[in-house]
Amino acid sequence: MKRVFFRVAYDGTHYRGWQTQKQGDTVEEVLCKHLSEALGEEIKLIGASRTDAGVHSLGNVAVFDTNTQIPADKIVYILNQRLPFDIRLQESKEVALDFHPRHTETMKTYRYQIYNHKFANPLQRWHSYFVHYPLDIDKMKEGSRYLVGEHNFKSFCTVRTEVTDMVRRIESIQISQNGHLISIDIRGNGFLYNMVRIIVGTLLQVGMGLIEVAQVKEVLGAQDRQKAGPTAPAMGLTLVRIDYPIEGY
Amino acid sequence: MKRVFFRVAYDGTHYRGWQTQKQGDTVEEVLCKHLSEALGEEIKLIGASRTDAGVHSLGNVAVFDTNTQIPADKIVYILNQRLPFDIRLQESKEVALDFHPRHTETMKTYRYQIYNHKFANPLQRWHSYFVHYPLDIDKMKEGSRYLVGEHNFKSFCTVRTEVTDMVRRIESIQISQNGHLISIDIRGNGFLYNMVRIIVGTLLQVGMGLIEVAQVKEVLGAQDRQKAGPTAPAMGLTLVRIDYPIEGY
Repeated sequence: MKRVFFRVAYDGTHYRGWQTQKQGDTVEEVLCKHLSEALGEEIKLIGASRTDAGVHSLGNVAVFDTNTQIPADKIVYILNQRLPFDIRLQESKEVALDFHPRHTETMKTYRYQIYNHKFANPLQRWHSYFVHYPLDIDKMKEGSRYLVGEHNFKSFCTVRTEVTDMVRRIESIQISQNGHLISIDIRGNGFLYNMVRIIVGTLLQVGMGLIEVAQVKEVLGAQDRQKAGPTAPAMGLTLVRIDYPIEGY
Repeated sequence: MKRVFFRVAYDGTHYRGWQTQKQGDTVEEVLCKHLSEALGEEIKLIGASRTDAGVHSLGNVAVFDTNTQIPADKIVYILNQRLPFDIRLQESKEVALDFHPRHTETMKTYRYQIYNHKFANPLQRWHSYFVHYPLDIDKMKEGSRYLVGEHNFKSFCTVRTEVTDMVRRIESIQISQNGHLISIDIRGNGFLYNMVRIIVGTLLQVGMGLIEVAQVKEVLGAQDRQKAGPTAPAMGLTLVRIDYPIEGY
């Protein structure tokens, strides 16, 4: 038996998120089905990140155990022949049997894209959030600085979570603009439920002038979800990368 | 009566191109239907560019005549409320009754996007051409230089055209790379049928090493479609902009 690690990119538009559920149509389910058919045995996945419905990925990670004779690094090619066009593996390789994609201390990078113009751009409609109200990017950058570092992010977590320790560390928040497209890259060691989307919703309030820059600090300190901005829509969010603190990952 | 000019962006994926045809599902047809409903009179369009099935636009141009009392610059807002998500006007304004979007000497900018990596990227699948074979960008840039300037582009024109004068002027070809995404921007005063896509197909042969850089000059000189590369797929092509040599357009 061996454990196979893979990275996977997907367009989340037509899926109910990563995790298998009764209603079907999840990324995990599609991957399990095609892996099981290709390898001739029932495959179960351990995923690194349970992305929500509509959220995209360029590099989510999962592992599975298999008795196949097929070399682990060939599985990426075999599976990509079978998968629908909106899911594509980017890498596959053998790892130690005790490697767990969630237990290891990882660094995740998310990107949230906003299309900020008077009129929507049909070519950006599935992978960005269209905001027609003019945004003050400099204020958004200023506001984001309060969130970098180790904090209790309770204000930026959807209430129905079971997690109790709400302290997380954000390594960096980078906001850049390319034409009408604004990208917010957030890198950290862990994220609470909807955390990135609530941070973006709050920074959008700053950018629109609905709250002052300094209020971001107050929102963070309040540890109260009600104080933060709305949860920005899933379509703008992409899990870009997961970095493992192990050589070769 | 007044003549209204508009710029329109669309995702060509689900359309049979711009021009109205029996089978339906064209961009022109959808625009005419919604304009006619919104303005309460039958609207006919004169378009600047008849983009092919699957080709996208960020700034195609069209005009129409109307007796409406609605100011021309408000039509962009009214129409965007009605249009499907894959078509969005970007501007509307009144122009002289004799303004014709094709007869004036214009400059068009097209962009062709190639996703060049071992594995496809699901987030790029509708708006770029996936090429897994490694491309030599420097050779493609070198080869493109032969095409800039005024030439007979018969080798780069699909044979079933009715056009007889095949001389066109390419102002510039710029090839840039951002990660795995390669953009080829071609700017010129006019393009033959499939010209951009055949130029890209030929430059791809150069990039893959199937033909030598210097052969691009021979292909151009041959004035024979058989000598050029294949027509690159529509999905990678976007009509970016049409510039008019008139102040304010």
